[in-house]
Amino acid sequence: MKKRTQPAARADVVVVGAGLAGLNAARLLRARGLSVIVLEARDRVGGRTWSAPMGRAILDRGGQWVGPQQHRLLALVRELGIETFPTYDTGAKLMDLRGELRSYEGTIPSLGALSLLDLHLGLRKLDALTDRVTRPALDTPDALRLDATSVETWMQANIHTEAARAVTAAALRVVFGAEPAEISLLYALDYARAGGGLMKLVEVRGGAQERRFVQGAQSVAVAMAAALEDTLVLNAPVRRIDQSAPGAPLQIGSDAGTFTADHVVVALPPALAGGIEYRPALPPPREQLHQRMPMGATVKIHLLYDRPFWRERGLSGEAVFDRGPVSVVFDNTSHDGAQAALLAFIVGDPARTWSLRPEGARRDTMVRLMARLFGSDAAHPTDYIEIDWSTEPWSRGCPVGVFAAGAMRVASPAMQAPTGRIHWAGTETATEWTGYMEGALQSGERAAGEITGAR
Amino acid sequence: MKKRTQPAARADVVVVGAGLAGLNAARLLRARGLSVIVLEARDRVGGRTWSAPMGRAILDRGGQWVGPQQHRLLALVRELGIETFPTYDTGAKLMDLRGELRSYEGTIPSLGALSLLDLHLGLRKLDALTDRVTRPALDTPDALRLDATSVETWMQANIHTEAARAVTAAALRVVFGAEPAEISLLYALDYARAGGGLMKLVEVRGGAQERRFVQGAQSVAVAMAAALEDTLVLNAPVRRIDQSAPGAPLQIGSDAGTFTADHVVVALPPALAGGIEYRPALPPPREQLHQRMPMGATVKIHLLYDRPFWRERGLSGEAVFDRGPVSVVFDNTSHDGAQAALLAFIVGDPARTWSLRPEGARRDTMVRLMARLFGSDAAHPTDYIEIDWSTEPWSRGCPVGVFAAGAMRVASPAMQAPTGRIHWAGTETATEWTGYMEGALQSGERAAGEITGAR
Repeated sequence: MKKRTQPAARADVVVVGAGLAGLNAARLLRARGLSVIVLEARDRVGGRTWSAPMGRAILDRGGQWVGPQQHRLLALVRELGIETFPTYDTGAKLMDLRGELRSYEGTIPSLGALSLLDLHLGLRKLDALTDRVTRPALDTPDALRLDATSVETWMQANIHTEAARAVTAAALRVVFGAEPAEISLLYALDYARAGGGLMKLVEVRGGAQERRFVQGAQSVAVAMAAALEDTLVLNAPVRRIDQSAPGAPLQIGSDAGTFTADHVVVALPPALAGGIEYRPALPPPREQLHQRMPMGATVKIHLLYDRPFWRERGLSGEAVFDRGPVSVVFDNTSHDGAQAALLAFIVGDPARTWSLRPEGARRDTMVRLMARLFGSDAAHPTDYIEIDWSTEPWSRGCPVGVFAAGAMRVASPAMQAPTGRIHWAGTETATEWTGYMEGALQSGERAAGEITGAR
Repeated sequence: MKKRTQPAARADVVVVGAGLAGLNAARLLRARGLSVIVLEARDRVGGRTWSAPMGRAILDRGGQWVGPQQHRLLALVRELGIETFPTYDTGAKLMDLRGELRSYEGTIPSLGALSLLDLHLGLRKLDALTDRVTRPALDTPDALRLDATSVETWMQANIHTEAARAVTAAALRVVFGAEPAEISLLYALDYARAGGGLMKLVEVRGGAQERRFVQGAQSVAVAMAAALEDTLVLNAPVRRIDQSAPGAPLQIGSDAGTFTADHVVVALPPALAGGIEYRPALPPPREQLHQRMPMGATVKIHLLYDRPFWRERGLSGEAVFDRGPVSVVFDNTSHDGAQAALLAFIVGDPARTWSLRPEGARRDTMVRLMARLFGSDAAHPTDYIEIDWSTEPWSRGCPVGVFAAGAMRVASPAMQAPTGRIHWAGTETATEWTGYMEGALQSGERAAGEITGAR
């Protein structure tokens, strides 16, 4: 894919952002006979999916999993001829609780009997609350009270053992890239509902982490973009969208020139959509939404090895931590085993301070951690690769935008509503699998449908 | 003040934003012998203070009061020869509680005995919590739990009568332009601490609303700018700040050209500072701060009359409401009585939907409300003037940026810390009278001190 220097300056629809949401909108609009121009700020497509050579394989700096309920993504993958493979999930998992390592099988870590009971009851309460969430979530009975409550406040009142709270918090941190204190309880419940329940979000087998992409998750966006190449403009951050002239086409000002269109799809997270200048000024609900959905903080780290030695010891490579810096570790070895890899996520509070430390100190910390988990073989990785998504100017955080307490009542009603001829997409606007690749596709489909009048 | 077309392209310090924070920083830096250029996005100075002719007087679309504890502002006002006058505060106030009007004297509305006791106890609890808040607030014992709690959640647990909750909520709504659900309890407490206690924030006599400015509050900024005129560039929104070249001057890209400086003071609310492109990318704590301090929502409405007829009936003009759209009404008659005016604040939830209604319907609603409060004389205003601060592109809300639950732990440590040679000002960064004109001055003073090494 190369940058076009003379793109068409006029189309029926300009799509802002060549992540999965924008590309899916563009693909569906073209299939329905509309002309489309896709403007992308980066020099690549894929947004928060971004695959790169690491050692002898292509691995993922960004989103990387697909689950069995993600029907749009699975159908698209089949259509595009993209191969997936099961996430490695054999063997024991490790849990580091108050500095003590223990191993377990299945999804729920082994805790003391009381903590385990507490955890089960806590998760059951969350499931029961999730089942009560309607669409839209603000129609849920007691919605404003649930939205006024942070997940942390709820956990303090409803989960009573430190260990059970720690496990719940670790799971939520990784899902949102945020501390439980930062998350509206109603938002967490609605997010869980959109993915079929909290356990679906955190599980490997049967859940959102079940399979990976042989060529990396970005291959989905790359294949979609290939069919759109003549309409795709890279290195074209959009600065201004002007729909102030009644009846006239919209003007879209970008670093690659000005484009005109009858409709615009803005397929960006709200935190980035707020960086565009709109004429006329956005109505207050939309403007205030853009200020109220900060991105989570996630640092994703790969340590490469000659072979996946942990598997030989009956370990899955998965580990969960109750305190920082790392929240969770996974085996991220390539599909053919050619490149062994362990993957660590640093999320929430420690993610925000991690990149302030010297690079050598960061690497040393990770290597020591892996050696503690998996033995001395882990002390000598062949490579160490980290990406701090908060410093990516065209994402500003990962995996997803998060509503804090009180933000759903403000921002949620504006989430999908078009503003004149501006249509809003991006996985944050999805009502199914919000925050996931599947949600991005669904949001693009919805935005395209708003324009063509189709479902 | 006119726009300079050929400003100096180089200065010791470039100040971004000609609100009170930026102007005070510029003034102090110049007094210490440094050269300064002030870049302002609007065609005027003053930021969230903005005075305009209304009928036979100049009244305030934005911030308008000064309290007796605001020493910097009072000293500056004396120095600049600006006149103030006491806010009209004589006579009975009105409270609309569940649709029933009652009148009262003093600061605390008349409620039933049980509600009144409940309100006093609730305010005493808030005062006790405020007294425990340290500087920085995150050092307060139990800070993370207080930050994880929204003010709404706290009120539900600690104030037991609907009437007392309604009065507390109405006061907080006006102070922050936000619903109690949107506000971190720790932030509310720290904000109250910065102003000497919650009651100081809401009181007229002895509090933050004690006096007004004869020529409008913007006269302070206008007088400061007059002394800076040769260095002030209007219509110059800053788009890019580049400090990526080590040892070289910073490059500041604006719509009025590129400027260079050894230091930059960004004197904007965090929500607007996030709209600037920084090179290199900001460190994660600062970047995530910019995403986590949305602006409150405030619509400020004036109704002009031939005379302040409510005064003749022994009414102060002040009224408080437990439900929307209006939260509070004040007498805003000019200092000399030449222009009678009532002022209504619509804040929080109703402010976000108010401008979506037809203009005629908005005006009718306000006129009916005033007639209900003050009788049939109020049914015929000579003019109706409203400003919705959420739609002001260079403010995006008012009066202040607000931390939701969980945001203090993330963002507060980055609030004042310079990023290389970028210094951060604006009333949100103040530690005294945060959110007020006084806080803006204090923040500019602090930023100037960082550069000159003075206190």
